[in-house]
Amino acid sequence: MLPDNPIIAIVGSGAVGGYYGCRLARIGHDIHFFLRSDYDAVARNGWIVRSREGDFTVSPDSIHVYSDPSKMPPADLVIVALKATANDQSHLLIRPLLHQDTLILTLQNGLGNEEHLADLFGPQRILGGLAFVCLNRIAPGVINHTDYGFVRVGEFIEGNTANASKIVAILASSGVKCELLHSLRYGRWEKLLWNVPFNGLGAVLDMATDRLINDPVGLELVRQIMSEVVAAANALGAPLPQELIESRVAFTKTMGAYRSSMQIDRELGRAMEVEAILGQPLRAAANAHVATPYMNMLYQLAKLVSRHTPQ
Amino acid sequence: MLPDNPIIAIVGSGAVGGYYGCRLARIGHDIHFFLRSDYDAVARNGWIVRSREGDFTVSPDSIHVYSDPSKMPPADLVIVALKATANDQSHLLIRPLLHQDTLILTLQNGLGNEEHLADLFGPQRILGGLAFVCLNRIAPGVINHTDYGFVRVGEFIEGNTANASKIVAILASSGVKCELLHSLRYGRWEKLLWNVPFNGLGAVLDMATDRLINDPVGLELVRQIMSEVVAAANALGAPLPQELIESRVAFTKTMGAYRSSMQIDRELGRAMEVEAILGQPLRAAANAHVATPYMNMLYQLAKLVSRHTPQ
Repeated sequence: MLPDNPIIAIVGSGAVGGYYGCRLARIGHDIHFFLRSDYDAVARNGWIVRSREGDFTVSPDSIHVYSDPSKMPPADLVIVALKATANDQSHLLIRPLLHQDTLILTLQNGLGNEEHLADLFGPQRILGGLAFVCLNRIAPGVINHTDYGFVRVGEFIEGNTANASKIVAILASSGVKCELLHSLRYGRWEKLLWNVPFNGLGAVLDMATDRLINDPVGLELVRQIMSEVVAAANALGAPLPQELIESRVAFTKTMGAYRSSMQIDRELGRAMEVEAILGQPLRAAANAHVATPYMNMLYQLAKLVSRHTPQ
Repeated sequence: MLPDNPIIAIVGSGAVGGYYGCRLARIGHDIHFFLRSDYDAVARNGWIVRSREGDFTVSPDSIHVYSDPSKMPPADLVIVALKATANDQSHLLIRPLLHQDTLILTLQNGLGNEEHLADLFGPQRILGGLAFVCLNRIAPGVINHTDYGFVRVGEFIEGNTANASKIVAILASSGVKCELLHSLRYGRWEKLLWNVPFNGLGAVLDMATDRLINDPVGLELVRQIMSEVVAAANALGAPLPQELIESRVAFTKTMGAYRSSMQIDRELGRAMEVEAILGQPLRAAANAHVATPYMNMLYQLAKLVSRHTPQ
């Protein structure tokens, strides 16, 4: 069980890890950031968070920063905010931070991250968090929070909620809107319902959400892909109601010209989370004998595009 | 039956119409070009053809040029080289050129052009030509012929070959490599086998043939799309052998970084032949109850991309 004043390590301190770590540091939590490219800036100046909910800074004296995970103390909670494309480094980065009862909360995108961590470190300690947030890292140590911020937390072993409830309470006390997920699997698929079409088509076509959804052909494509996600989820124990498609479409229309993370990654020549967002869901669907031709082709197109993105 | 010294009208005098018209004019045929954007240049200077088979010019005195089809004489043969996207103008442009026995040969891309002309002007007079040629119009009245040039000609009403044979003989006498097609339908689908994947993917991803075919994922996509084309063709009376897929793949590897016409059209902000190359084949497949999910998605993606291309 998580102690009342947990030692919290943040692994993968890009915009997501930095933002939630800063929210927690700001209310006095004991936060240990593992940093790479931003280490010098944060060690010297701390973090600067520009947020529509109010700008704030986190001084270097109020946090711990490391560029080497072997120098970090064992943590009670490890928050993983690595890109899913860096999952091959999970063992190296997280193993040194674990004691017998350390919990691991992944805030990563897509499907398969909890399974990956469970394989490495055992399933009991694994939790998944779904972050609905618009963030950019605009300079070393400087995060821009442009919209949303909501987090849903569930446990990898369904039926358990004690640890997830505690984490929800901690995040909520830092001002983050937060909710307990009784089925993490359901939550993951519900998020994929949006992420598969808009990250996939957004990256392949280099089109923001408004261009996709305001064209009847784009909308038809989005709906077909969403229908396959629903069919896959239903076969995999995450019964998404069919009506969710139209409610997600309607919600997306309110978002304006939103560029998905994968579209931005392509544009900036960064690694794209093709496997987590597109590959893992369609492999799960195939295992459940659900035909997903549009997801398959979208995956192949995205993979092809990701290989040709200038690095 | 085509007379020995036919009056030949060329409708749609872009690179394709201009090139073949010039080959025929050069050996003394009576050629009447309908021109729009290039009218002034060609009326003043004639045509300039830069060709790997030898540059040549066609003087304005040796041809007839028009900017108004109603001023043109009835022709014995009308060669249609309009873009398929301009088919809504066929009636207006071609009707004034017809007498009782005028033959109409379309050199247009994709599927459905002969059917469209047959609906307007009767099926007996319609022929289809498949041009395998790399041409650009590099300035008004100036055509650059970079590769190939082969033409296959067949009649819309299968079984007939008399008119097609005569046209093959005329084209061959002008130095164009030419072949009689006993089944125009087979020829069209055989060409689609290449055009559907490479025009479609080329335009959607803005990728030349070498990038598509030298990546294992790209090659897999190309093969899957080709398999659907083969299945559709087989159901529609054009039995393409399965082995044709690998021979087309091998041939494409010899082409280098070839940019398909649809990729170039997208880049230049011109109308893309999405319906003729992608839409008509998949509608034909659907009528024959052949499932073509990859062709469907490719069509939707291309349609979406074509609407957002700057005009």
